[in-house]
Formats: sequence, structure tokens, C-alpha cells
Amino acid sequence: MKHILFFTFFLFSFSCFSQDYYGNSRERWLQKAEMYKPELTITEKKPLNIVEILPDDKAFQKFEARKLSPADALYTLPFREKKQVIIDFGEHITGYFSFSVRTTGRAADGPLRLKFTFGEVAAEVAANFNDYKGSLSRAWLQDETVTVMHAPQTITLPRRLSFRYVKIELLGCSPQYDFNIYDLCCKAQTSAQNVPAGLPENVSPMIREIDRVGLNTLKECMQTVFEDGPKRDQRLWIGDLYLQSLGNIFSYQQYDLTKRCLYLLAAMSHTNGYLHATVIEKPTPRAQEGQFLFEYALLFNVCLKDYLEATGDVETASELWPVAKRQLDIIRTYVLSNGLMDFEKLGKEWWIFFDWKENLHKEVAVQGFSIFALKESYKLAQWLGKENEVADLPGLFAKMSHAARKNFYDKKSGLFVGITNKQISCASQIWMILSGVASPGEGRKALSALDSTPEVCQPGTPYLYHYYIQSLIDCNMHRKAKEALTDYWGGMLNKGADTFWEVYNPGNDFISPYNFYPINSYCHAWSCTPVYFIRKYTEVFQ
Amino acid sequence: MKHILFFTFFLFSFSCFSQDYYGNSRERWLQKAEMYKPELTITEKKPLNIVEILPDDKAFQKFEARKLSPADALYTLPFREKKQVIIDFGEHITGYFSFSVRTTGRAADGPLRLKFTFGEVAAEVAANFNDYKGSLSRAWLQDETVTVMHAPQTITLPRRLSFRYVKIELLGCSPQYDFNIYDLCCKAQTSAQNVPAGLPENVSPMIREIDRVGLNTLKECMQTVFEDGPKRDQRLWIGDLYLQSLGNIFSYQQYDLTKRCLYLLAAMSHTNGYLHATVIEKPTPRAQEGQFLFEYALLFNVCLKDYLEATGDVETASELWPVAKRQLDIIRTYVLSNGLMDFEKLGKEWWIFFDWKENLHKEVAVQGFSIFALKESYKLAQWLGKENEVADLPGLFAKMSHAARKNFYDKKSGLFVGITNKQISCASQIWMILSGVASPGEGRKALSALDSTPEVCQPGTPYLYHYYIQSLIDCNMHRKAKEALTDYWGGMLNKGADTFWEVYNPGNDFISPYNFYPINSYCHAWSCTPVYFIRKYTEVFQ
Repeated sequence: MKHILFFTFFLFSFSCFSQDYYGNSRERWLQKAEMYKPELTITEKKPLNIVEILPDDKAFQKFEARKLSPADALYTLPFREKKQVIIDFGEHITGYFSFSVRTTGRAADGPLRLKFTFGEVAAEVAANFNDYKGSLSRAWLQDETVTVMHAPQTITLPRRLSFRYVKIELLGCSPQYDFNIYDLCCKAQTSAQNVPAGLPENVSPMIREIDRVGLNTLKECMQTVFEDGPKRDQRLWIGDLYLQSLGNIFSYQQYDLTKRCLYLLAAMSHTNGYLHATVIEKPTPRAQEGQFLFEYALLFNVCLKDYLEATGDVETASELWPVAKRQLDIIRTYVLSNGLMDFEKLGKEWWIFFDWKENLHKEVAVQGFSIFALKESYKLAQWLGKENEVADLPGLFAKMSHAARKNFYDKKSGLFVGITNKQISCASQIWMILSGVASPGEGRKALSALDSTPEVCQPGTPYLYHYYIQSLIDCNMHRKAKEALTDYWGGMLNKGADTFWEVYNPGNDFISPYNFYPINSYCHAWSCTPVYFIRKYTEVFQ
Repeated sequence: MKHILFFTFFLFSFSCFSQDYYGNSRERWLQKAEMYKPELTITEKKPLNIVEILPDDKAFQKFEARKLSPADALYTLPFREKKQVIIDFGEHITGYFSFSVRTTGRAADGPLRLKFTFGEVAAEVAANFNDYKGSLSRAWLQDETVTVMHAPQTITLPRRLSFRYVKIELLGCSPQYDFNIYDLCCKAQTSAQNVPAGLPENVSPMIREIDRVGLNTLKECMQTVFEDGPKRDQRLWIGDLYLQSLGNIFSYQQYDLTKRCLYLLAAMSHTNGYLHATVIEKPTPRAQEGQFLFEYALLFNVCLKDYLEATGDVETASELWPVAKRQLDIIRTYVLSNGLMDFEKLGKEWWIFFDWKENLHKEVAVQGFSIFALKESYKLAQWLGKENEVADLPGLFAKMSHAARKNFYDKKSGLFVGITNKQISCASQIWMILSGVASPGEGRKALSALDSTPEVCQPGTPYLYHYYIQSLIDCNMHRKAKEALTDYWGGMLNKGADTFWEVYNPGNDFISPYNFYPINSYCHAWSCTPVYFIRKYTEVFQ
């Protein structure tokens, strides 16, 4: 007993000395996260076809996969002569890839050297990875070289892969024997288990197809956490989680996964109480230290509120309420006496994201988002009966809304524009609408004005596009919302998407935030939200 | 009972139809081989030093490894900046390599791509493998690319490796964190367990050193079979087995391994009864079909005789006697009525080896080797009391010896020379001596004459060099034998050998039977025989 008492004392004193904002809650939160870790469902996927991937100016990223023969044809093909083949699994898969090798006649008197290149999209498999100059780790690119020392043998690549296509190249073999590569298989994995309800009968084929691919996207990203992308970064980001959670509420409804992610983020927050934007799950959960993203920290609150609303799980929401409450201090720290956010100072101390768009000026969006976050957090407090703990909020978001209208609204044009930069951006209008600064009527005017304004800074990713669709709906621009969703996500579909992409610019297939388009994620969580829109707003999307 | 009877009948009829020369013995032989499969001893080997490998005209293959610091220095080195390091384990090792990765601070937010290049010798690690044009599988070259998805993590490369040096190169990493590579380890494996007896005190340091490296060479090649080379080909070849068995008799004395190999070869022989030169052990034993090597088939007999002589294991020798007896038919098939081997026809139907030496003319060697093999096989028959089964042999080898003297011996020069080609080769003299065609006096004369003859075809490998040393000893040229062994194997030592090589030409470090010297085996079974000479002929090598 003495020993145990000493240990408790030690823990207590440790938490005092380290001045952990959350005392000794983290261990419990981490235990909860572990408790709600989902089982993965494993499905054996077999390849469909042998294809060739050829240059085609009309195809997405100028490469088109064309069927040559059923995949089985590979299994009897003497591969020493063939040297290279591209296999199409016919769908996006996340899991562990295995293959078998057997000799066609004489014994294997020397090893084989095989290279496997996996691609979510066709052009990825055709790309040259050798002179990679991208900004992320080149190791994300999915090419693996394997030495096969003996045959027959079945080999499973140690790395979890995300792909539809796999190119197999022979880099070395003995001249004394030939061989087959056969039994290609991928043990696909996801934690998505429930079957989402079907769509109403009057939903159009296109919307139905967008919904199907959205569900696939979400399913592929549902692993032991909500991952941002199963190819890359394979981890929990709050911004992606927020949108995945929305999609999940209207489809798989696997709330334990959301709960796990919320606990993980809380457990991995900085000792000062602020959330890290991203948590790396393996080998053991760890935050990416120093990665503080302004909106993401606050989206935790919105996500927690949505979770509570969907589940009524007051216990979890109450336990994590201190975390949500703490994030509000970020806004309090930077709000000036005039009600505007100190945009410049915030930008020096926090990563402000909103979109992958280099030239986007974020002053207005920051103000709008802050108001939105305060309002959503206050709703959370109300749900939990904790209004008294954040009694300053109504006054604060009112003051900030007033300041926004006063400083950013150009009545003449009906557009919201920043003080320090006169850029007219979609993001600015969106966040003025979602924050309620703009009335639905003003929002309609602003969004409509964008169409006739030259040089608007348009959304660069499905992430911002989500908020754009939401703002259209919130302004009752239903036809436009449906059109925009159909054009944008349907545009990906028309370009052959099996899952929705991290980045999509209808006019530029090669755009990449990382300076190398094949490293983009082509199955990306934040792109799954048509699932949410189509299923929540059935009257809009029927 | 009925079922079992049927099964037996089926087996019997099957063996009749397939006309297997050995009836249904193979299964039993394979069982015996399995029964004598040795346990491997695993030893954890740690690296010694960080080295640099620099061009040096005086060094073996023009590259020299120079120590920079103890290997431990790597373990605290931020590797993202370092990018490349070469580690020296200080000795030749065969086994499974593992390493660990940990971050130096921030979490690993992306995978690493690392390349490991393993070399038995320094130049191998410095070589460029990219434009490999060698004749063997490029996959024998030991470079492996590894994706490290998470950190901390310990990874073991799936391939068994043979090396002293390992180069580690960073091919991809995230800019967000740095990392250490640490705990390099190789689980070295060998089936050599016994400790060979020490050498007499009066043995010179050089001979002692040659013996030590010879023992290492043999030890590294002793796995679950006697392998020819642990880097390449990693398998049982009869010619190597013969010499390993000799070495083993005078050192480790692990006769079960020899027994296993003899049974494996017998079990994997062709249905016509002739032995395949090589057996591939993994994943399940299988001959390299079509690989019929004249001398190797017959060296099985010599090896079996040596084994019997060393162990007195009459049971094994009797069980395998039919195999030995069958190999004699190879000679019977090609011997002409004049007592000469039909060298041309033999060469069309069998691989005649003797040495890796492109221009070696093998007519005289074939004749000498055939007589040697017949004589050794007859000794085996005598041991087993089976002379009556091969009663033709004494007459046959007498006739063949007579024909050899008559056709090949040039009394004037004292050298043995072929009919179809007047090349003067070391191999011809060697095999005339080992066959007993040349008397010891004539042998001395022939071997001495080589020294003063221009354009002698010299041995190209330690394999033929073994027989050269043996012929020197057999002719009582003891001083010369010691000199030759010291010059040749000591020459490798002086060039830094940790284990003896597959190919060694004192005047050309870059010679390769495979058109790419880094793919040569630098730990090769047939090069271990100083162990045999030094320990058997103590009076010669003291």
C-alpha cells in the first residue's frame, strides 16, 4: 500500500510541476480513446483487369487506363519476358497487398527483384518518382522494391497501401527460369461496418453516384481513427475529423470512432491546454508538436457539439468540456477592443489555414470563423448547462459581429472585403454567412455578386468547398447549392474518381499544395461531405 | 487395410511408369536429409565502426575503408542532416539485419525511405548497381529499400544477408522532424558449433591466419546445408560440398551436415539416376533441373568415400552406394575403345567445369579426372565390400591411364598436353598427377616445367588452386605447396579478406565470371580448403 500511495503522490506532484492545464485527466482520456478503438473489418480484394496506362490529353492528368484482359491472364504469363504489367483492382482499396510467385518450370536458382508502384489514380502509376522535389516526405509515394529470395513464395508488403492500380516491374531475375506472379490480393481494411440508409427514390443518378463515392471516401478514411487520407497523411486532423463526423452522423453513425478521436485529441493537447491540429496514432499516440492550427483547435468544439447533438452522450461532452472551453481563450487572446481579431498577431502565432490557396487573404474569414466558433461553442455550453462558465460569449460574438459588419461589409457591392487587403474571396463571403454576420438575404447577394466579380479568389479544395455549399444552403440558394455540388464533386466523378480528392481545381488537374501532384491524396476525408449534404438536406438534393 | 494396400500398389506402379532409377528410395532419402538438418546457432552481432570508403589505388578493387568513429556515434546522430553513413561490423556475417529508428524530438509525421547496401568487401558498397549488366540475377546484389512508416520502430529486413559493411542512405523524409538510426544488429547464423582443435605451436602466424580465415569461410557457409556462398548462390553444389567436407573432416567434424547433403543430392537426382550438380533448399528441396556437371556428379562418389573413411558410417554409404555406382556410367558412356574419353561428345552433353577460366582447354583434365573418380569410387566399393559390382573398374582405369600417357605425355617437355589443342595448362598437369597417370617424379617435373613455360593457362579460382596444392603435396613438393598456399590465400589476406573468395587472380582484382565483380561471392566454400591442408599435412605447413 505504501508503494501505491507514493506512486499516487508522485503523479500528483508531477502534474503540479509540469503545470498541465488538464491536471491528470490525460491518462483517463487516453484510456477512453483506447476503449473505443474500433475493430477493423478485413475483406479480401482481388484484381479485376490487366490494363495499360496511356497518355491521353482528354483524360484526368493526361493518363487513361485501358483494359487489356482480365487479371487472371497474368497468373499464367511467363513474367521474365513480360517484364512489366499494370493491374487494376477496379476500386479504391486500403490495406495490405500480397502476391505469390511460382516458377513455370525449372527451379528458382536466384532471387527476383520486383518493383511495385501503387496508385490511387492512373497518372500516379505512370509518374516518375525519381526526381521528386515535393515538400512532403518522398516516402509517401507508394513504390516498393522487393527481393524474392525463393519460389514458390507468398509475400505481403509490410506497408499499408492505398490504391486502385498497381504496376509491377521486373528489375532482376535469373536467366535460368521463368515465373508467374499470381494470386494478387489486398486485405482491405476499414472500421466502417454499418450500412448507411438508402437515398430517397427520387434522387437523381448523378447525386446518387456522388453519394456512393462520398461514402466510399469516408469508409476508406475510417480506420482506427478518422484518417485524413489513407494514402497520406494517414492520421487524425481536427479539420478532417469535423467533416467526417458530419458525414458519419448521416451515414455510418459509428459514434464510438468520433468519441475515440475526440478523446485522443484531448489527451494529446499541449500542456497549456490548446489542441494540436493533428495526432499521429502509431506506434503510440502522439501529437505533432508545434502544429497549432487556429480553426482546427476551435473546430474541436463544433465537432463535440455535433457529436453531443447526435448522440446525447452528455458524459463524454461533459468530460471534454474543459478542453472546448480552453480553446475559446485562443479567440479571447487575439480579439481587440474594437471587436476585430488581431489578424496579424494571430497569423504569427498560429497557422491559419482555411484552404490550400497560396494567395488567399484570410482576415475576413478569421473574423467570421471566430464568431461561428464562439456561437457553436455557446450552443455546446447550453446543451451541457454550462452557460455560466462562458457567460462572456454572447456579448463577445455580438461585438465581433458588429465590428465585422462595420469594417468588412461593402454595401454597394454587397461583398465582404478585408481592411488590410482588398481581395474579394469566396472564403470571406462564406465565413460572414456561416457566422451569421450576413443575413441570408445579404449572403445571397454576396454569393451571387461573386459570379459577376472579376478576379475572385476561388476555393482551392473540397475543404473550403464544403463551407461554400453550406453557406449556399444557409442562404436558401438550394438550386445553386445542388448545381455547385454536382459541378464540383460530379466533376471529379466525370474525371474518373473512385473516391474524392484532397485537391480539385476543375481547370488544373496538376495542382498540388506539395509541388508534386502524384503525392496528393486522392481519397481524402474532407472531400466526403456530399454524404452529409445529400442526406441531411434531402429536399435540396432530390 | 485395403486402402493402404491400394496405396502401396499405386506407389509401386507409379515408380514403374516413371521409370525412376532408384525405385522408391527418394522419399526415404529425403526423410534422412530432413532428420539430419542441423540447428542454427544465432549470435547477435553489433557494428564496430563508422567508416568512409574512399578510392585508393593501392587497395583491393581500389577502395579502402577507413575508420571515422565508433559505431555508437551513429546512434545519437541526427540522420536527416547526415543523409548517409557506412557501418563496419568488423567481420563477415551471415544473418538477419535489423535496425531501429526513433525521432530526436518532434513526432514522425511522415515515413522515411532508407536504402541499405550490404557488402562483403568495401568496393561492393561503393559500386553503382544501377546499370548492372552481369549474367546472374541482379537481385543477388544486396541493396534493399525500406519504407519506415512509423517511429519509434524496429525493422528486420526479410532477406538473409552476407556482409561486413552496410551503407545506409536516406532517400526520403519529412522536413518536420529528425531521427536517429540506432541499435543496428545482425542475428548471425551458422550451423558450425564445434570448436576445431588448435594448430601445433610451431605453425607460423601467416599460416595460422590463413587457417583462421579458412575456418571463418567454412563456418559462414555452414547453414542448413553446406552452401557454396552465403551471399550467392546460397545453395548446395557438389563441387563445393566435396571441398567443404574435406575441410569439415579436419575442423568442425560435423558429419551429420555432410550426411544430410549427400542424402539431399541423392533424393534430388534425375530419374535417370544422374546427379544434378546443385540443389536449391528453399522453400522445399528441389534440384536445378538440367544442371548436369560432369565432375560434380562424380565428386559425389569421392565425397561419399571420404565421409565413410572419416565416420565409418557404413549404413549411409551402403544406402547411397547405388547412386555412386550409377554415376560411373557417365564415364562408361563416353570412354572410347582406345581408352580416351570422348571429350567432344561429353562436352556437348555435360557441363565440364574444372575452373572459371574462359580459354581453358579441358581434354586432358577430363581424362585425368575420370581416372581419379574411377579409382576413388573403387576404393569406396572396397570399403563396402562391393568390388564385385564394379569389377570392370580396375581394368578400365588402367586402360584409360595407359591411353592418357600414350596420347598426352610429352616426354621431352615433361608436360601433359591434349591432342585437339596444344594448350599447356596447370589443370592438365594437376589431373594427370591426381589420377596417378603421372608418377610423383613426373608430376614434379611437370609442375616445375610450368614455371619456365611461357603462356601457361593458370588457375582462375581457388577451386582449381585446391587441386594444384594437392598435386604439389602428392608429388612431395612440400616447400612449393606451402609457398603456393601462402602466396595465394595469403594474397587474399593481404588484400583484407575476412573470408576467402570465389574468384582470386593476384593480378586482377576485378575479374568476374559474371561480368560484374561486385556480384562475386567473397565468402566461398571452395576457398576454405587451407583448413584441410594445414590440418591434414601439419608437417608441410608447420
